[in-house]
Amino acid sequence: MKKSILITGGARSGKSTLAERRALRDTGRAIYIATAEAHDAEMAERIAAHRARRGAQWTDRAAPRDLCAALAETDGGDPRLVDCLTLWLTNLMLAEADWRAEGTRLAALLDAQSAPVVFVTNEVGSGIVPDNRLAREFRDAAGWLNQTLAEACDEVWLAVAGQPLKVKPHDHPF
Amino acid sequence: MKKSILITGGARSGKSTLAERRALRDTGRAIYIATAEAHDAEMAERIAAHRARRGAQWTDRAAPRDLCAALAETDGGDPRLVDCLTLWLTNLMLAEADWRAEGTRLAALLDAQSAPVVFVTNEVGSGIVPDNRLAREFRDAAGWLNQTLAEACDEVWLAVAGQPLKVKPHDHPF
Amino acid sequence: MKKSILITGGARSGKSTLAERRALRDTGRAIYIATAEAHDAEMAERIAAHRARRGAQWTDRAAPRDLCAALAETDGGDPRLVDCLTLWLTNLMLAEADWRAEGTRLAALLDAQSAPVVFVTNEVGSGIVPDNRLAREFRDAAGWLNQTLAEACDEVWLAVAGQPLKVKPHDHPF
Repeated sequence: MKKSILITGGARSGKSTLAERRALRDTGRAIYIATAEAHDAEMAERIAAHRARRGAQWTDRAAPRDLCAALAETDGGDPRLVDCLTLWLTNLMLAEADWRAEGTRLAALLDAQSAPVVFVTNEVGSGIVPDNRLAREFRDAAGWLNQTLAEACDEVWLAVAGQPLKVKPHDHPF
Repeated sequence: MKKSILITGGARSGKSTLAERRALRDTGRAIYIATAEAHDAEMAERIAAHRARRGAQWTDRAAPRDLCAALAETDGGDPRLVDCLTLWLTNLMLAEADWRAEGTRLAALLDAQSAPVVFVTNEVGSGIVPDNRLAREFRDAAGWLNQTLAEACDEVWLAVAGQPLKVKPHDHPF
Repeated sequence: MKKSILITGGARSGKSTLAERRALRDTGRAIYIATAEAHDAEMAERIAAHRARRGAQWTDRAAPRDLCAALAETDGGDPRLVDCLTLWLTNLMLAEADWRAEGTRLAALLDAQSAPVVFVTNEVGSGIVPDNRLAREFRDAAGWLNQTLAEACDEVWLAVAGQPLKVKPHDHPF
């Protein structure tokens, strides 16, 4: 079963837990592709907490920037969980990489994957317009990336209070 | 087919693209009613980008404040797309107009329209409570306007990562 | 009919109105359990506006911190409306209480209730990451509380522009 799944949601909406459950569902084993880099103590703490929650069914791998290569190299076996696209985007922006080209390339390679991929991403655009321009640009980029991946994925889910709400596929008149 | 449709979503959730697709769907032609005013360079850039994406199927019209008149004058022909209610509200507030009366009047006139109207609006209330009082007041006003229009519209959709999620009509026990 | 219902949504998404309608639906009477404390004039104004909208079908009760006791004492009769969990969490944090223990205790007692409970809560995690650490910690705590209650409740709804979107129960492959 080849399938690509996007799980989006706000901070602490339970999206990572849902993604982990879904990645493990069929075979009881999965590859965890972490995009996080510990830039400060708070982030290091979050990474450690996430890792502590995961058990022996997981193989870990880091891919702060070259996510396309990580997917190519891990294809053919267990399902992959990518957690998360928003941090990947942050890393690309900090490295002044061409994030738009990278996002387009990522979406384009999904169709050729033979093992499932579950992506976690964040809703960041439903608050009041941020005061500073950088935050607005990041918000625009994150929204673009979410749309691009959602278009390419077979399923899209919105995590609300830890519960999955189906966004795609769905009948609609658009 | 007379129909009024509200499409809401966060920043860069793909709501304008969905609204454009829906407005063009039946006849391949539509009237674009823009509420945006270019207050600064960033906004001018966004308006230009939006306009560049639209093609020859569109007739353009500006209605930064008198949206009720614009709907009355364009009724009877092609579907109308109003993009967006949140900027319209901003313009009314900046002009110190009675936005609550205007919103109520807008909702009340939908039933008598003979051509479809698609409204785009924004979710701005799902972040942390803003520090400054003005932002909180705007958030309250935007929420009130969204509720008022959603109540009056035949359909409501939430854009999530570019995908439409049906909010109304829906069976529910409320 | 014993039932616990969680209604979440952004600011001014219409969640309180939906919750009031649902609490009154079966018997036309309900108990309003307010968690709000008027810390300042703006809050006092909001509390007064909420109270003004409610009519004689309501019995009022305040429970800024001891919500578990309030539920135990009001059980067995009319449905209860708790408005809202986010303010309750704020009060617990300000009092330096063990909010995690309190939230766990609240979720655990739902199963034994004989009269319905409708909870109102807030989505606060779908904006850009807040600058200050305290806001991020509150966001994390609010997300945890929402997940914990959603897991324990029979129904979960997301209010979008005043319309209820069903989140739980729902068929899903997670």
